[in-house]
Amino acid sequence: MDKQLKYAVFGAGSWATAIVKMLCENLPEVGWYMRSVYTKEHLLREQHNPNYLSSVEFHLEQLKLSNDINEIADYADVLIFVIPSAFMHSELEKLTIDISNKIIVSAVKGIIPESGLLVGEHFNTFYKVPLENIAVIAGPCHAEEVALERLSYLTISCADPKKAKEIAKNLSSDYIKTKINDDIMGVEYAVMLKNIYAIAAGIAHGLGYGDNFQSVLMSNAIREMRRFIKKMHKMKRNINNSAYLGDLLVTGYSVFSRNRMFGNMIGKGYTVKSAQMEMSMIAEGYYATKSAHLLNEKNKKKTKLPIIDAVYEILYEGKDPKKTFKKLTEKLD
Amino acid sequence: MDKQLKYAVFGAGSWATAIVKMLCENLPEVGWYMRSVYTKEHLLREQHNPNYLSSVEFHLEQLKLSNDINEIADYADVLIFVIPSAFMHSELEKLTIDISNKIIVSAVKGIIPESGLLVGEHFNTFYKVPLENIAVIAGPCHAEEVALERLSYLTISCADPKKAKEIAKNLSSDYIKTKINDDIMGVEYAVMLKNIYAIAAGIAHGLGYGDNFQSVLMSNAIREMRRFIKKMHKMKRNINNSAYLGDLLVTGYSVFSRNRMFGNMIGKGYTVKSAQMEMSMIAEGYYATKSAHLLNEKNKKKTKLPIIDAVYEILYEGKDPKKTFKKLTEKLD
Repeated sequence: MDKQLKYAVFGAGSWATAIVKMLCENLPEVGWYMRSVYTKEHLLREQHNPNYLSSVEFHLEQLKLSNDINEIADYADVLIFVIPSAFMHSELEKLTIDISNKIIVSAVKGIIPESGLLVGEHFNTFYKVPLENIAVIAGPCHAEEVALERLSYLTISCADPKKAKEIAKNLSSDYIKTKINDDIMGVEYAVMLKNIYAIAAGIAHGLGYGDNFQSVLMSNAIREMRRFIKKMHKMKRNINNSAYLGDLLVTGYSVFSRNRMFGNMIGKGYTVKSAQMEMSMIAEGYYATKSAHLLNEKNKKKTKLPIIDAVYEILYEGKDPKKTFKKLTEKLD
Repeated sequence: MDKQLKYAVFGAGSWATAIVKMLCENLPEVGWYMRSVYTKEHLLREQHNPNYLSSVEFHLEQLKLSNDINEIADYADVLIFVIPSAFMHSELEKLTIDISNKIIVSAVKGIIPESGLLVGEHFNTFYKVPLENIAVIAGPCHAEEVALERLSYLTISCADPKKAKEIAKNLSSDYIKTKINDDIMGVEYAVMLKNIYAIAAGIAHGLGYGDNFQSVLMSNAIREMRRFIKKMHKMKRNINNSAYLGDLLVTGYSVFSRNRMFGNMIGKGYTVKSAQMEMSMIAEGYYATKSAHLLNEKNKKKTKLPIIDAVYEILYEGKDPKKTFKKLTEKLD
């Protein structure tokens, strides 16, 4: 890829803001689409996102900001989507231009509920983007630490290693190290599943389980994740690589993770509704739990998913967290 | 095993105290050897260990306390050693009775420096204890959470599954779940190595690395551990089981782990000597680092151990933690 590709980020949450920051370390200009007129105007006036990572100051000459998704999609060659999975469908409905010749990068964490598809599959099916033009960005990476320029590692997954390298190059800097792999499906599933396990960790904490149990939970979670992904997309992968295990750990151990926080509230006795109302950010794992459950239901021979099952029963079937986790502890080892 | 075997614990640290507590849930009497006359007298007077887990109250009629190692070794059929590896040799020198017909259980974390052997190997070589009579107890388990009766899982490893089950049965309770396996060597190495990785996590924290890096470090650590153990003792094992990965996580993520604390002080600029002097408990990982390094040196074809190497260079070769970790970050992914 000789010509300098143009990059754009879609979304204005904390992870989107972090990715714009990474790109700004390398590129003369970055397109940035956001829904909110207020956020855009605040950025133009104050040079930072009013809602997320507001300590990060941008140089306006590096940003091409717009509230028009088509303008930014048209502008860029590489489109990085960082929108909560639950809002992807309604955002994409605004697209009127053809994006089949673009490189699509997903930093979305989960399944698109309306299609039941991974983000990559969704773009391939409905937007005719060839699979080799679809990539995924995985952590382990808290956006907050990117804001602080603390050393972080990203994995860029793409069937075409040249494209993976191109994207990786433009995200790399003193504080961002990147590696590439070709397990796009596996990485997408891992990114989705980790949020369910973070909810489980939060529920356990809320119920009063301690660090000993947390480590058993994570040890079981990575084995469950491996089984799940293997069933969905069998290929050679080391589940202990950073994109899978590392990402699970950074989320499952973080007291700042909104998924863990959401689970913690459930464990402490909040109803699902009241926990959701208390939180201003969306806990992706809530939707992921349903998606993972449905995907496994579709399998003829189901995979054993005791942790996901327990979280599903609590969130969607109104089961008592205490009793459900008591039963879960018998299934772990 | 029909007759009720007698159990005894050797050592009076926090982990020893926790194991005595577990056994007291099941057995009418537990032998307990401790070096300190003061600790024994305090226990007799106040019913708790003065130095560790002092919230745990024992029933004196359940304890057979002694400062004479031979008396307790003679009394019991199952001898559980919970003495820091650095003191094992000098304690065992006091033994004058034959223990070759006893079941030996190691809850020691590391190599015995004087022999360079794992605890099991040491008993087999110098005390003629058959290998099938040697077992290991592994976590993930903070002693402090046992004191609080928080749910914890133990793995009992023994070549003879009947003996593993017998020991597991007597450690199990409402708050202790046990599983057995036969990978005694692998579990002993894992228990030893985790403390080195906890030191590494502490150094990273002390140097200002954040949670993103910590998760990458742990993801690399479990892969390094797998390579190391595979080299030392090849057999089929799932490194993500609780005895390996779980134990690594509970130690590597605990701010209470003395190994992590020791590393943190090193990262913050303490010299090794001053960090050791500040700490009243021994950081097992300090000795383990040297043992692991020496074991790998002996291999004809060395295994790549970037994390252990970095910790070794800092602790034993006086290398600068900041520079050494900067180099290490290039080797991780």
